[in-house]
Amino acid sequence: MELTEKTLSSKLVYDGGLLKVYYDTVELVNGATAWREIIRHPGAVVMVPVDEEGNVYLVRQYRYPYGKVVLEVPAGKLEVGEEPFPAAQRELEEEVGAKAEQWTFLGEMLPTPGFCDELQRVYLARGLSFGESHPDEDEFLEVVKLPLSQAVDMAVDGRLQDSKTVAAILRASLWMNKEASEPCHKSPVM
Amino acid sequence: MELTEKTLSSKLVYDGGLLKVYYDTVELVNGATAWREIIRHPGAVVMVPVDEEGNVYLVRQYRYPYGKVVLEVPAGKLEVGEEPFPAAQRELEEEVGAKAEQWTFLGEMLPTPGFCDELQRVYLARGLSFGESHPDEDEFLEVVKLPLSQAVDMAVDGRLQDSKTVAAILRASLWMNKEASEPCHKSPVM
Repeated sequence: MELTEKTLSSKLVYDGGLLKVYYDTVELVNGATAWREIIRHPGAVVMVPVDEEGNVYLVRQYRYPYGKVVLEVPAGKLEVGEEPFPAAQRELEEEVGAKAEQWTFLGEMLPTPGFCDELQRVYLARGLSFGESHPDEDEFLEVVKLPLSQAVDMAVDGRLQDSKTVAAILRASLWMNKEASEPCHKSPVM
Repeated sequence: MELTEKTLSSKLVYDGGLLKVYYDTVELVNGATAWREIIRHPGAVVMVPVDEEGNVYLVRQYRYPYGKVVLEVPAGKLEVGEEPFPAAQRELEEEVGAKAEQWTFLGEMLPTPGFCDELQRVYLARGLSFGESHPDEDEFLEVVKLPLSQAVDMAVDGRLQDSKTVAAILRASLWMNKEASEPCHKSPVM
């Protein structure tokens, strides 16, 4: 089945400080015309920092839309013209005060397929060394260190709620399990 | 550390067909004033339908913001005044053509802590029986059946990208593993 929609027109209808809303008209697969209201986003990076003792570093911050403090993996928006990998390094240092020697790209995630084009790149960051965190001036957050195994339990039982955090913690943990068991998958030397 | 932000004012600045954008001013924890631009959302339900052979049912649909077809768990927005559980039953039937006898609530997920208040309720749906799917008139989708174990691999290696899908598939799978191994965790009868 052909599922693609064709853009007929696109108009910036709200040009906010953070949110840019576009009202597009599209041709559907059955030839009918419909409208799509969407937000353009610069993209983001999401980091799962894991130390040699198997701890992960999360951040608590007040999330205004939800009216509560949310525990999340460190993450941040790309700045204009910024590449994802330097952004991941920058944000990890800003939010957690950590540099990582070993970076593993764990793929992309799409948080908002219904109404926004935000693309998140997920990184596993290991070989951590710590300095001072220095969040943006209007960013108030607390770093929380806990065993990755505990974060996995919390992602499964619902104590972790942020979607990128649940997805990235579980993806990273299962990826590391697979990496650790890899020797078993290799052919034995005869 | 106190992290709460206090709302000083709130104004609807874009009243679209889908998106309602609010521009709020807030008092930060340091007493400074800042603005928050956010979208109000009615909430959504996310289902992981798993049959007795261990297959999961996903849907492929064109996602206009990303300009491509995305493979996702079935999900849908709450209608005005609708409770989450009946919405989950309705959406599973609409999108997949399935009814489920056994529903397990797997907690909440917050997909957009930066700029939208969408709250997703996640359900594991088992004991499936199939009829006809009947998506909304402007909804074009294809149901894809695959082993849950394969979907887990795809969530880990990045072939599945939709955040709610990665999070919900991995949460459901690990939850079911725990459920299956539960007898092992119980104290032995002496």
